[in-house]
Amino acid sequence: MSTSATTNDREEGLAFRPKFDASGLVTCVATDAATGDVLMVAHMNDEALRKTIESGEAWYFSRSRNALWRKGESSGQTQRVVEMRMDCDQDAIWIRVEQHGAACHTGRHSCFYRKIEAADGGTRVSFVDAERQFDPEKVYRK
Amino acid sequence: MSTSATTNDREEGLAFRPKFDASGLVTCVATDAATGDVLMVAHMNDEALRKTIESGEAWYFSRSRNALWRKGESSGQTQRVVEMRMDCDQDAIWIRVEQHGAACHTGRHSCFYRKIEAADGGTRVSFVDAERQFDPEKVYRK
Repeated sequence: MSTSATTNDREEGLAFRPKFDASGLVTCVATDAATGDVLMVAHMNDEALRKTIESGEAWYFSRSRNALWRKGESSGQTQRVVEMRMDCDQDAIWIRVEQHGAACHTGRHSCFYRKIEAADGGTRVSFVDAERQFDPEKVYRK
Repeated sequence: MSTSATTNDREEGLAFRPKFDASGLVTCVATDAATGDVLMVAHMNDEALRKTIESGEAWYFSRSRNALWRKGESSGQTQRVVEMRMDCDQDAIWIRVEQHGAACHTGRHSCFYRKIEAADGGTRVSFVDAERQFDPEKVYRK
């Protein structure tokens, strides 16, 4: 809501000036270009962003491994970027992708294979679209 | 990829145990239930999660204002939750919503109204689906 020149520029301008957090990352949401399903939420640093734009394939930065990572480099489950967008304050990226195989390291199409509902004053979790498309034991240990 | 009991439980279990970051937040992606478009990326703390589940309306936690926030409480642009899911490691939430009006504080349907493409060894940004559905000056200053 700030009307400062900087905010206005970032929100209304056509310059790509990603707003990295203290760890040098932006959040990236990958959706399935065909179905609209959210496949995964991950992070990109400056290099991952650049490589994704240049190559048309999704690159991320792994916080747990502290390393740049081409999606599918171990598993073969690559993502071809169909469209890439940034949000109003430029701290989040949305990529619509053609997912080769499955996005989740558990072997499922999407990382979002569990549904949350209100139930009896509490919360009920259930599986949804949770069939495995590959066996992670086989894919990651070869 | 860890096979520890804890990781396995979090990924394969049916207990809701959100993995909050150092600030007590998880990331939340809201998509349009009708079109699959990503509307916004925001954050939820424990209370925002609970209120969202209980009420069926989206609540967030604003990092800039350091405050719990019912989506639309100032603007009227509320979000009714159609489905809520969590991801494999439980640090991200996906809600499919019926968006009342427009999701972005700039007045646009989605916060993702700019496209990024590779161009001549650099990056080209252009507007896409960027028509305003309300005038933020009027909506937020009344």
